[in-house]
Amino acid sequence: MDESRIYLTHLECSVCGKQHAANVEQHLCSCGGILLARYDLAAVASDVPRDRIAARPWYAGLWRYSELLPVAPADRVTLGEGATPLLPLDWLGQELGMDAWLKDEGLNPTGAFKARGAAVGVSRAKALGARTIALPTAGNAGAAWAAYGARAGVPVIVAMPKDAPPLTQQEVALYGARLHLVDGLISDAGRWVAEGVAREGWYDASTFKEPYRLEGKKTLGLEIAEQLGWQTPDVILYPTGGGVGLLGLWKAFAELRELGWIASDRPAPRLVAVQAAGCAPVVRAWESGADTTAFWEGAQTIAAGLRVPGPLAGALMLRVLRETRGTAIAIEDEAIAQAMSELAGHGFWVCPEGAALLPAVRRLRASNWIRAGESVVLLNTGSGLVYPDVTPPNGAVVI
Amino acid sequence: MDESRIYLTHLECSVCGKQHAANVEQHLCSCGGILLARYDLAAVASDVPRDRIAARPWYAGLWRYSELLPVAPADRVTLGEGATPLLPLDWLGQELGMDAWLKDEGLNPTGAFKARGAAVGVSRAKALGARTIALPTAGNAGAAWAAYGARAGVPVIVAMPKDAPPLTQQEVALYGARLHLVDGLISDAGRWVAEGVAREGWYDASTFKEPYRLEGKKTLGLEIAEQLGWQTPDVILYPTGGGVGLLGLWKAFAELRELGWIASDRPAPRLVAVQAAGCAPVVRAWESGADTTAFWEGAQTIAAGLRVPGPLAGALMLRVLRETRGTAIAIEDEAIAQAMSELAGHGFWVCPEGAALLPAVRRLRASNWIRAGESVVLLNTGSGLVYPDVTPPNGAVVI
Repeated sequence: MDESRIYLTHLECSVCGKQHAANVEQHLCSCGGILLARYDLAAVASDVPRDRIAARPWYAGLWRYSELLPVAPADRVTLGEGATPLLPLDWLGQELGMDAWLKDEGLNPTGAFKARGAAVGVSRAKALGARTIALPTAGNAGAAWAAYGARAGVPVIVAMPKDAPPLTQQEVALYGARLHLVDGLISDAGRWVAEGVAREGWYDASTFKEPYRLEGKKTLGLEIAEQLGWQTPDVILYPTGGGVGLLGLWKAFAELRELGWIASDRPAPRLVAVQAAGCAPVVRAWESGADTTAFWEGAQTIAAGLRVPGPLAGALMLRVLRETRGTAIAIEDEAIAQAMSELAGHGFWVCPEGAALLPAVRRLRASNWIRAGESVVLLNTGSGLVYPDVTPPNGAVVI
Repeated sequence: MDESRIYLTHLECSVCGKQHAANVEQHLCSCGGILLARYDLAAVASDVPRDRIAARPWYAGLWRYSELLPVAPADRVTLGEGATPLLPLDWLGQELGMDAWLKDEGLNPTGAFKARGAAVGVSRAKALGARTIALPTAGNAGAAWAAYGARAGVPVIVAMPKDAPPLTQQEVALYGARLHLVDGLISDAGRWVAEGVAREGWYDASTFKEPYRLEGKKTLGLEIAEQLGWQTPDVILYPTGGGVGLLGLWKAFAELRELGWIASDRPAPRLVAVQAAGCAPVVRAWESGADTTAFWEGAQTIAAGLRVPGPLAGALMLRVLRETRGTAIAIEDEAIAQAMSELAGHGFWVCPEGAALLPAVRRLRASNWIRAGESVVLLNTGSGLVYPDVTPPNGAVVI
């Protein structure tokens, strides 16, 4: 079996369906739509038995799923990303009468799930000849892309709000990336990047403005399926800012079903977009039945990664929630801080984005949207170490 | 194959050889010697082909080596520890004319290799009926034991220097452990713990005062061997404070050889104890040919985990360095800070302890102690995220 074979065939616009060549740099479709990577899944299904994936060494991380990724082995830029644990939360399962799991993405390079997207995105950008990679960020994606750029030897430029977490700013500089601070939000940082892309020819790695970050995030869903013995959980809760992970989960389970690696008679997991009450454009659009998101004015939350007021993939996220029979829910900062304390009391110091999932799952269970006996995965996107400034004091007992 | 079988047979004193029962709580030997866990390795060798280990799922983490651990599956307390990457450092290998690898232990719960020892130590303590676990710490072991105690539902008491990293103090409290700050060093914290152990009956989890933390750290060596295709590297550099990882590596390769899982005609890796110039009791003893370490007065370094002035295992560490034909070397704080910047420029934000390995490997190669073409593993014990206060500014380029 030739593990170096790339099954990527083309890119497909998620809006108009137009096909684009995958062997040259591509960003958005001419219609403005987001491009999705497409593979020869029939060939993968015929060439690769599912058990061959299981037999691959653990230390290959997310690259164990090489046939579903757009990167040749020689082009991989790796810091050891992926292969994170899926841990049972017995106490929560007992409280709510269901099976509860935590997928802990804090155990990644740079302490967050952003490493998956950056590993695949930087690998592919380098292979396509990118000379300078630029991106805006609300939180820790900037640190991840800076780290992988450093590993790859490709210069990175990161633009972020000047009130983004200080540690993230420090990290970007430490990895040797150039840092641009804007007096505004990720949307303002994005405008600054767009100008530089047009003027300087930077490789635009803004969320969804290149198709490969999504492929890295997709491995989240592949791992969850494998960790559950190639079963699908009933529900996955995901803290939603730009939405790359949400779409990655959707794409993962769609590809797994087409491959026949998961049962085709079982529905895809119902995906839940969990947002902060201070920046909830997806929740507002979902509740009003809108087809796309409207810009959220005055975005503010302690969960920096959720402060994305105008996500490019707004319409696509809403489509994914409809297709998977999911939902969207907003959580207040006070409840997020309380959940950080509570989860730490069970051994998990999660980031505020991940903490938002705990009150969310309780509310969805209370309303019986999640039913008794269902299996539910909370996707914690990062470690609390990434946000030391928003740690609740948690009543230190000094003796 | 019954994966629930425990092959642990007894505990053996590393000084006098006396055997102790392993099915009850044990700490030091009556002679004061450190106890080592012993297994029925002949039975393991006959029951478990090496390939069965490789076939176990990646998401079992360090528990993949269950037959070499003292914990029954039902007793495991896990946060997803172990199974960390071993990454080639091509730039360093080319510079020095050798094969260079980084074992990155930052990808563990609590961001450091301490999770391995805490996972196995807390699992075993709980199984043996411990009601309160107490330990002193110089750095991040306290956070790890607090986290695993929280996961296990066993109360933890941590004593540490009041000038230990603020983030570590915050973490211990966040996980709900009780915190005692001493105006002194880890040795002073250790005296306070010893008093409480005698007075209150706490389970003493001080470094080497229980035999199972070492078993968790041992998995470092098991993983390195497996990741190199069951080959032994020529040299492993280890940042040495209390020395649990150093002894764990030694024990791992000894057991692997006895099992026949690595070639018996190849020597064990030469182990290098890397210390901070401001606290180098092992280096001083090694250079003077002493049989044990002397207390290091006025210990001070930015690498908090290396500030262990009177390690309990001093004599045993020196024996290990002799047996493996290793060495010991001290690195100044300025060189540590520079190495943090340099490694970040290659994508790795490591802790100061891990950064010390970079100048160490260069000096050992320059003196030809490491020879051309040898394979060398740098064991980075944790993420830089654990020590945001000691991050070098690294010339932020703000544009």
